[in-house]
Amino acid sequence: MELAARACPFLRNSTPSALRSLSHQPAKTASNGLVGMAQQCPVMGKAMTVQARSAMMASAGANACPGAVRHFSASAAKARPAKSQVLGYASAVSSNDLKASVQHELHKANPAPGAACPFKPVVPASHAAPTAGKTFDYEATYEAELHKKHQDKSYRFFNNINRLAQQFPRAHTAKPEDEVTVWCSNDYLGMSKNPVVVETMKATLSKYGAGAGGTRNIAGNGALHLALEDELAALHHKPAALVFSSCYVANDATLSTLAQKLPNCVILSDAMNHASMIQGIKHSGVKKMIFRHNDTAHLEELLQTLDPSIPKIIAFETVYSMSGTIGKVNDICRLAKKYGAITFLDEVHAVGMYGPHGAGVAEHLDFADNLNRSQGSLVHNHTAMDQVDIISGTLGKAFGVVGGYIAGSAAMVDMIRSYAPGFIFTTSLPPAIVAGATASIQYLRNSPQERIAQQTNTRALKAQLAALDIPVVPNPSHIVPVLVGDAEVCKAASDELLRSHGIYVQSINYPTVPRGEERLRITPTPGHTDEMMGHLVRSLESVWQRNGLKRTSEWKATGGRAGVVEGASDPEPIWTDAQLGYSSQIIGSTKSNVPAAGLHAASVGQAAAQI
Amino acid sequence: MELAARACPFLRNSTPSALRSLSHQPAKTASNGLVGMAQQCPVMGKAMTVQARSAMMASAGANACPGAVRHFSASAAKARPAKSQVLGYASAVSSNDLKASVQHELHKANPAPGAACPFKPVVPASHAAPTAGKTFDYEATYEAELHKKHQDKSYRFFNNINRLAQQFPRAHTAKPEDEVTVWCSNDYLGMSKNPVVVETMKATLSKYGAGAGGTRNIAGNGALHLALEDELAALHHKPAALVFSSCYVANDATLSTLAQKLPNCVILSDAMNHASMIQGIKHSGVKKMIFRHNDTAHLEELLQTLDPSIPKIIAFETVYSMSGTIGKVNDICRLAKKYGAITFLDEVHAVGMYGPHGAGVAEHLDFADNLNRSQGSLVHNHTAMDQVDIISGTLGKAFGVVGGYIAGSAAMVDMIRSYAPGFIFTTSLPPAIVAGATASIQYLRNSPQERIAQQTNTRALKAQLAALDIPVVPNPSHIVPVLVGDAEVCKAASDELLRSHGIYVQSINYPTVPRGEERLRITPTPGHTDEMMGHLVRSLESVWQRNGLKRTSEWKATGGRAGVVEGASDPEPIWTDAQLGYSSQIIGSTKSNVPAAGLHAASVGQAAAQI
Repeated sequence: MELAARACPFLRNSTPSALRSLSHQPAKTASNGLVGMAQQCPVMGKAMTVQARSAMMASAGANACPGAVRHFSASAAKARPAKSQVLGYASAVSSNDLKASVQHELHKANPAPGAACPFKPVVPASHAAPTAGKTFDYEATYEAELHKKHQDKSYRFFNNINRLAQQFPRAHTAKPEDEVTVWCSNDYLGMSKNPVVVETMKATLSKYGAGAGGTRNIAGNGALHLALEDELAALHHKPAALVFSSCYVANDATLSTLAQKLPNCVILSDAMNHASMIQGIKHSGVKKMIFRHNDTAHLEELLQTLDPSIPKIIAFETVYSMSGTIGKVNDICRLAKKYGAITFLDEVHAVGMYGPHGAGVAEHLDFADNLNRSQGSLVHNHTAMDQVDIISGTLGKAFGVVGGYIAGSAAMVDMIRSYAPGFIFTTSLPPAIVAGATASIQYLRNSPQERIAQQTNTRALKAQLAALDIPVVPNPSHIVPVLVGDAEVCKAASDELLRSHGIYVQSINYPTVPRGEERLRITPTPGHTDEMMGHLVRSLESVWQRNGLKRTSEWKATGGRAGVVEGASDPEPIWTDAQLGYSSQIIGSTKSNVPAAGLHAASVGQAAAQI
Repeated sequence: MELAARACPFLRNSTPSALRSLSHQPAKTASNGLVGMAQQCPVMGKAMTVQARSAMMASAGANACPGAVRHFSASAAKARPAKSQVLGYASAVSSNDLKASVQHELHKANPAPGAACPFKPVVPASHAAPTAGKTFDYEATYEAELHKKHQDKSYRFFNNINRLAQQFPRAHTAKPEDEVTVWCSNDYLGMSKNPVVVETMKATLSKYGAGAGGTRNIAGNGALHLALEDELAALHHKPAALVFSSCYVANDATLSTLAQKLPNCVILSDAMNHASMIQGIKHSGVKKMIFRHNDTAHLEELLQTLDPSIPKIIAFETVYSMSGTIGKVNDICRLAKKYGAITFLDEVHAVGMYGPHGAGVAEHLDFADNLNRSQGSLVHNHTAMDQVDIISGTLGKAFGVVGGYIAGSAAMVDMIRSYAPGFIFTTSLPPAIVAGATASIQYLRNSPQERIAQQTNTRALKAQLAALDIPVVPNPSHIVPVLVGDAEVCKAASDELLRSHGIYVQSINYPTVPRGEERLRITPTPGHTDEMMGHLVRSLESVWQRNGLKRTSEWKATGGRAGVVEGASDPEPIWTDAQLGYSSQIIGSTKSNVPAAGLHAASVGQAAAQI
């Protein structure tokens, strides 16, 4: 397939969608449809003539050009093609089928590389200036938008990954017998397979059924929903919390509604904020100011330009998911106080993972204070967690289920509850989901061992990659972003890991990360064993060697990128050695004697006891 | 409680939030905080002085005004109040506690009705013109926004309803021993308790765990997600489908992304469209034109004003949830073709419920044609379903689980998949949810008996209410909207049904329905028995009598409202007698001999066999 795509300039530059679209057009004339295009090709044309002739001999009632149909329109001829043939992400499959056919012919014709081809890439007709009187061509526009994605290599092919609860962190791919190790899930602590969660959900299914059956206002508000919100409020030591379908919805609905309700509001937003916050800010319609990532001096400059009396929201995150950097909670809260702003803090990648009870980075920053703070106490108002006005979090990552939430003052929460369409007009989460999430939060509140094992594995992996000069974006958190720096190469590396090494690490390309900063984002869990980690590290080394990928030293020598820069020392992990419960000497070693890769109950329990 | 609230103008006009806020302020001076306010009251002040004195005698170290604190700040004094004391919807509880205290004092003081009171309602300070130099008072703004909701009676108090799978359609309220019959759930067919769904979900939980663990692009895309999308595409006879967290998100993300991608797009939107579509249209930022509800002449007028060459989306619904009216699918599709528009059809309240396979109203309109159409066939392009460009639906109502989707052309779906932030940047639905939804769709595709029993019960209920002159908004669908026409009275009627009759029907007030059209929206299910229906009808009659609520004839005599108007005949139900499988004579009777109230397998099976 790849040979054909590379050899033929027509195929190389055409999108799968454009090809499919052409293949659906009738080939009544030589200049119409994919068949017509192919007939003009010096390579394909000849081959098709031969095939068409023999096919016509075989079937008197056949299509005028059965050979071409067999080659190009097999899927279109079916009553309803299967998913693999209709959806674009798998329409790559049907385009690959096309390409395979051409490859076959190319192989037979044995063309010279770079042989002349009369065809230009298929780009759907421009939609910018439609002819007056004619109606609009919607499908061409869709195809053109997809074409753009293919052209800039940001088109996404979804991998088929089915995570197996009993063999965590293993998953099967499209074929149940093909198993791989998942190294990029956000089920950071394996809570999705925790029996406490799973059994709670099953029992809830039996008692309360599959769905909530309505919005929170109409038949969809039960004791389990209220209990979850109480649990979340207590976790973050806030007076109230509110649950949404997802944290995407929580961020979008809360920021947009909140800013709309605050007259003349300005939102100050960290440059690396998540898409959900960006959407919420956009949807609010208020003035937005973007401060450079984690640059509190820049934030203060911006704050100084604003009237002290107008309302301002500073929106930021604790753990930035794709880089692993951590927001400066205390500094930003101090600035908020100074300039009369409120803070909106997304702890999505931190809840369950940081703090003595898994309330997130804000809790972690006052580890000792919060360790013995009574559950849900609102009294300590000097901690980072108390300073933050609004915290948003997810139930779908470290907590292992699905859903999102905010926590904050009772009146703020009640206002969002009363005005946000994204909260009001949607079916509430199923009872089993909210019960499972509550069980997960309660479990992680009392069990630090998963957090500790996860951090231990993170340290071990970072150390092993550093020893091999494989570039990791430096950060103090649990994310291990391995820099590749090119969209196609990054996808190819991910594909190679999956196909040749049985390892699933998704390539992260634009728009999730900036162009040129493409990466493999690795997320160790407590379930990854020493053997799995050794295999991952060897596999990465093999991929780096085989493809000549850049090492840390090479990035630094060429000026650096994405934080992999000359002189950048690895920041101190936010989980300190003392918090992890063992000495820094052990951590210093790179390849061996690292405890708790996998859930080694004894050492982990010991570590937990020392918190 | 209600006595106090009515007797005291201060309490009557203050929001619970404002009261709670005041109660949290220190009572250092007589003019500060709720205590201070109360001390100025001729009724409360005297009582408080007595109580304070005795309390101080009892405890030397007590608060300066312990009596008042006991009365007004009990919840604030706790380390962290429970949900019932912190969230506004239950802060009604805490305000009720406050009111109860006052009632007690009022009762003792035995004040004359309308006795003079020195207090004005508590309205937080205006935020419109903050003093320069001062920082903004966020909490006051939240309180003010809540105050507005209380003032216009649109503040929502969530009922605590826990639907019991084994006793469907029964639920317990806050106390597990207090059971009620739910008559307003959107679990229209009881699929949330269907063993096929529940057992599929449990098995999936065991195999694949609680959560998906990532976005569709990163570790959260499995065979179950693809299978669900294949199932949905096949259901609607479309080439492709895409699943979202909810149909709120599906509508919002699809309409906003689609319109943004179509240059100079105009959206034509039915006046009664759901909030999720309204948000999607708003978020797109494109020009919007609203046509009068179901008024295709008005729609055509608007279309005629637009350049034929520009892209246009006509957004409408099949079953309008709050009125039960049904969109004119064929007429609107005809107009779309004529004027070069595409159609976006929300079938949220119709999927599972209409059509021989539960694909919705668009399928129902060609009942006979679609009955024998092969699953997923794309061939018939003359049916209503084929004419519609984009269908959106939910997995959370008749299908009984949670989630939403769109179905349409492969390129359109792929474009939304590739560009919509609300799809891309969110954790995918858990495997158990998508497996449960798939099982539900497959079950309902092959089992018409639930749909038929639901329609039969709807007809029976409408007939019984008509016989009693209780006003039902006329419609051809499964919704039974009982007109009340006043927000407070509607809520009181709902409360009376819940407390005195063990029946849960939520009152539907502004902004879900227009002011003056407040209603009790009743949704019969196949699980409601004849006895349950008889009890409901008698209870409604009792509430109507006791409170002197308006009858159909009275509404008509005064000019009508919300479709309950002079001369309005009940429209022919969309499920015809022939489709239901029995003759119109039986349906004509109002109170007895109505088959299939509840799942009467024999008659239902017989009916199903006759489709």
